[in-house]
Formats: sequence, C-alpha cells, structure tokens
Amino acid sequence: MSRFFNPRLTSLEAYTPGEQPRDRTYIKLNTNESPYPPSRGVRRAMDRQALDDLRLYCDPNATVLKEKLAKLYDKEPSQIFVANGSDDILNFAFLAFGAEGVLFPDISYGFYEVFANLHSLPYEKIPLQQDFSIDVKPYCGQKRMVVIANPNAPTGIALPLRKIQQILEANPDNVVLIDEAYVDFGGESCAKLTEKYPNLLCVQTFSKSRSMAGARLGFAIGSPELIADLETIKYSTNPYNVNALTQKAGAAAVEDNGYYMRNCRKIIKSRLYTKKELEKLGFTVLPSKANFLFAKSDKIGGMELYLRLKEKGILVRHFEKNRICDYNRITIGSQKEMEAFIAAVEEILGA
Amino acid sequence: MSRFFNPRLTSLEAYTPGEQPRDRTYIKLNTNESPYPPSRGVRRAMDRQALDDLRLYCDPNATVLKEKLAKLYDKEPSQIFVANGSDDILNFAFLAFGAEGVLFPDISYGFYEVFANLHSLPYEKIPLQQDFSIDVKPYCGQKRMVVIANPNAPTGIALPLRKIQQILEANPDNVVLIDEAYVDFGGESCAKLTEKYPNLLCVQTFSKSRSMAGARLGFAIGSPELIADLETIKYSTNPYNVNALTQKAGAAAVEDNGYYMRNCRKIIKSRLYTKKELEKLGFTVLPSKANFLFAKSDKIGGMELYLRLKEKGILVRHFEKNRICDYNRITIGSQKEMEAFIAAVEEILGA
Repeated sequence: MSRFFNPRLTSLEAYTPGEQPRDRTYIKLNTNESPYPPSRGVRRAMDRQALDDLRLYCDPNATVLKEKLAKLYDKEPSQIFVANGSDDILNFAFLAFGAEGVLFPDISYGFYEVFANLHSLPYEKIPLQQDFSIDVKPYCGQKRMVVIANPNAPTGIALPLRKIQQILEANPDNVVLIDEAYVDFGGESCAKLTEKYPNLLCVQTFSKSRSMAGARLGFAIGSPELIADLETIKYSTNPYNVNALTQKAGAAAVEDNGYYMRNCRKIIKSRLYTKKELEKLGFTVLPSKANFLFAKSDKIGGMELYLRLKEKGILVRHFEKNRICDYNRITIGSQKEMEAFIAAVEEILGA
Repeated sequence: MSRFFNPRLTSLEAYTPGEQPRDRTYIKLNTNESPYPPSRGVRRAMDRQALDDLRLYCDPNATVLKEKLAKLYDKEPSQIFVANGSDDILNFAFLAFGAEGVLFPDISYGFYEVFANLHSLPYEKIPLQQDFSIDVKPYCGQKRMVVIANPNAPTGIALPLRKIQQILEANPDNVVLIDEAYVDFGGESCAKLTEKYPNLLCVQTFSKSRSMAGARLGFAIGSPELIADLETIKYSTNPYNVNALTQKAGAAAVEDNGYYMRNCRKIIKSRLYTKKELEKLGFTVLPSKANFLFAKSDKIGGMELYLRLKEKGILVRHFEKNRICDYNRITIGSQKEMEAFIAAVEEILGA
C-alpha cells in the first residue's frame, strides 16, 4: 500500500477469485465455467472486419446486443442494461441503490460484502436457515436494498418465484436485486416480473450457461427508470465497458440460444449423475439448481478432500468459512470429467 | 431517474462521448481513432483456441500482457497496471488518490470533472494560459492530487518533461497523474521518471496509437506501491475487467510495436500537412503533439464549420464551452482523408 492511498479504503478486503494454477493441466471444477465452447455463430462473428474495426470505439449503448436480448426476454431495449460481466452491474447497483443499506445472506456470493465496503454502505448479513435455505421474512419491510442470488452460491439452492414475490411485495420502497447468474440450470427467472415491480432488478451473465466467462458480459433486466440510473453510473465511469468483440459475440450467442440451452440440459443431466454417485458414497449433497454441487462427506474433511483431489489433478472450490468448511463446491463439467471426478473420490475414500 | 437512486448522485452529469451517427458513412475525424487497423499479429492471436477458451475466465492478473509491457518500457511487471481502457484507470486513481482534492486544467479531458463528482471529491480547475498552454506554478505545493493530460486535449499542446518534473518536485506528498493518451504522436513520456518519483502515475492507452479503441485496454506505469493500490480497487470492483481476447490482442500488439510506431510517424506527417494547409487558409492552429489539431478560422464560426463539414460527410468534434467554441478538434486520419478534409474546408470557405 502507498502512503497516498485513500484512508477510507485502507482496510478494504478485496475479493479472492478462484485459483487458476498453471503448473499442470487440471480438470477445472472450481470456477463454475462451462465445459462447452462458445457456439459457431460466436466464432463466425469474430471475422476480419470485426478485427479491423477494433481501431474504432465500440457502441457505448450496445444497441444491437440490447435489441437481441430484449427480443429474447420479451422486453424493450430500455429495460436492458449490459456491462463488463455481472460483477460490473452489481458494483453499479450497490452504488446506485444501496445508500440506505443492503441486506444479503451470510453465505452467498463473496463479492456482495466487498461492494458494500467499497462504497462504505451499511449492510447486514442474514443467516441462512439450518438447511442452508433462505427464509424470506428477515428481508421484508426493512427499507434497505435486498440482494439475493437465486439460485444461491455456493449452496445451489433455489428460491421459488412466489418467495421472491413475497420479498418484492414487502419492499416497495427499495430495490430488490436478484442475481440470476445460475438461473439457466433449473431455476425460475424473475425477469417476467419486472413490469409489475419497478424496484426489481434481475441480473444475469454470459459467463456460465453461455460459455463466455472470458469475454466479460453481464446484463440486467428492470424498469426503464432503474436501467437509466445504471446508465448514468456507467456513463460516469466507463461508457465503453463492453468492448466491440464482446458485443458481437454476445449478439451471436443470443442468436444461438438453442445451442446453449441444450448445453444446460446436458449439464443438468451430469449434475443428477454426480449427485447420485456422491450420495452412494455417503456424501450429503444440497439440492442444486445450478451448474455446481455443494457436498460434504463424514468420512473426510472438506479441506482434505480438496487437497487430495488437487493432487490427482482435479480442482474444486473450498471455502474456509466456519459454517461451510466441511463442504466443497464442485462445478459440473462434461460427463467424462464428472466420471473422472467420481472415480477420484472413490479412490481417495478407498471405496 | 428512479426514486430509488442514490441522492448523492442525482445531480451527476455523465460524460458525453463523441457522436457516432449511423445515418450515412462519414469520414470520422471526431474521436481520435487511428485510421490504421490493428496489426497482423493481433488478428493471428484471435485464433480458434482463443475463441474456444472464452468459456474460461481470463487471467485477472493479465500476467503475459503485463510482462510484455514491462519489457517494452524497461520496468518490472509490479510497476504495470492494466485495465478496461485508460478511463477505467483514471476512475480508480481518482478514488484511490483524490480524497484530499484534485487539480486539473479548466480545458482538458472532460471526464476528469465527472470522476471527481462521481466520487464526491473536492476539485479545482486551473485555467490554461492565454495561449492555451499550462502554467505549472498553480499545481505546485497544493497538497492535492494533480491530473494533467500531456499532450493536453483538445488543444494538443505538450508540456516538456522538465515542467512535469517541476510539478513532481513540488508535490512529494500527493499523486501526480500524467495522462499520456496521445504521447506516441510526438510527446515525451514520463514513464522513465517513475523510479525517481514514487508519487508519479503515468497512464497510457491502446486506443489511439495502437488502433484498439474498440478492444478497451489502458495501462499505467508507476511505483509498485501505487500499482498495488490500483490493484486493490480493481479486485474490489471487477477483477476480470480486461477480457481474454483483449489481453491476447494487447500482448500481440506490443510484439508488433514497430508497426504501430510507423503508423504514428505517418500520422505526424499528415498532421504537419493538415496544419500547413489550414494555415494557408487563414486558420489559427495550435501547436499539436497529438493525433489531432485544434483550429479556428476568423472567416467562419466553430459550430458553423462543424455543421457544414457534417453535411459534406466529414465529422469533427466541436465543444460548446465558451473559451473554445470558435475551435474544432480535427482527428488526423489517413493522408487521403486529410486531403478530402482540406478540400471540403476550401469549398466551405469558397477559397
């Protein structure tokens, strides 16, 4: 740290991304990426003209991409916001709507707390219930911004839409942000509710179901007024935050939606397989609607299993946090990768 | 605006990017883009593997790109920061180092004021001298962050390095940020001074001399302590802000440095031609070291010339601001484009 650093920020604890070791080739089941590459349309969009045009600024309004997303979700472009990954949107939304305070679950996406600290917002972490599900009551009528990942991470547990509606009904005067990074793997999206609730912001990403984690593209669906506020922040920080190639890739991916939804179904199938096999081996596996499983064994500690798997060339994600340190979060890769994972676990347990 | 918007931000005036009309094909001399496409190496880097790998998160540390930049500028990777365009870096730097206040010229890059307002920082705009040059005295010994574009925009006028050193010597206790977006067109970079001055942050971009405005890549050179502070902010907002393709394109562009420096020399040659021709037509043209000229005529108003050129399919940039409304900022395109521009001006003036 330099002696010039803003004193308000000196205690900031930054987010820790999942490890990306380069010492050998791993089966990567640790950062919830898709095992399937982007569609052919995405590759075709990166043509000579697109590369030559990199000399020009990209469209700060991402007009074409917004139009395609609006069509897919049956919205108007004014109800769509796009940014540099959903992290970028979350950051803007905390700044735009969190001044009165923010509520989110104690076990959820680790970045929520970082954003709250970055913007010096008061916040409260609401404990998940014993079974790791979300009780909606503590989020009701508190007059503070509510942020919920649905399905939640790292648990994978989804809230039904009627519970989200219960939160919305009880929060007419503050924004309710539903982070749907993992919704395409079996959850129910609240996108259709944005007409009814002008305080609802539905945030999604191309990083998981759309195989574009490295391209950085997130989008939000909400009332034109909420979207306009996010645009004000974007035009006051970095109007060109979604680069030209990512805009083109995103538009092409929306056109190829069928390919990505087929991949989601394959991942759901492999998730069911993996859950069943882990349960056969005595694991407790939370009911996941995401592209990962959260699981623990009473035969081996969470950290030990993580380390033994890493020795065998398989990366999963382990969190040090007290309440969940017995668990590991296992991304669902290809069927072949999941079979290799199960074989490795069997070996480790001597099963 | 929604009724949920942070009251601190409701009066925020966002930055206005240069217009990008799509009604017809224009000769674009309005946003300081390069007329030359990215190098062959950049195109080659966007191969099948790179596109398939978009499913994976990019390297948040941009290790390869930082190593190549460090080598080019004779630095260590710990002295290099990369981000989503230099706007991203400026935004982080205002937040990181501007808490005590910020000084910048009254006529300069319009985004400085937006960043100061976004972060609620006290700031002072120091008037340029009569001839639009920067007097360094008002920046000395004020114990506030200093931000200077060198060469300045939209004037194009450069400060010699000894003047920058004078500012640095008089500001040991605050950061001095030199925004060198246009330095490759004839300015003197302060990059070599970062070892001597741990408070110096030298910010550059791939948008102008490196033909990658649409790819979004900026970088900063500074002491490891300043760079670490910027990394803290980046890891607290969006660790993956430079996407995978842009990292690869950037690394390839550094390898092809010779190509880009040749393009800069071509642009300087066309700038000299354009300046001479404008002066022949009676224009006052400021002495530019950038890829644009700032010029006025006493035969036609700035706004009128802008509009008449637009009718003829040529876009230049006009600013409404009082002190400079007689001027237009003319980006230097290819020699052919500049000849078309001069012919259009001659027609308009009836010369």
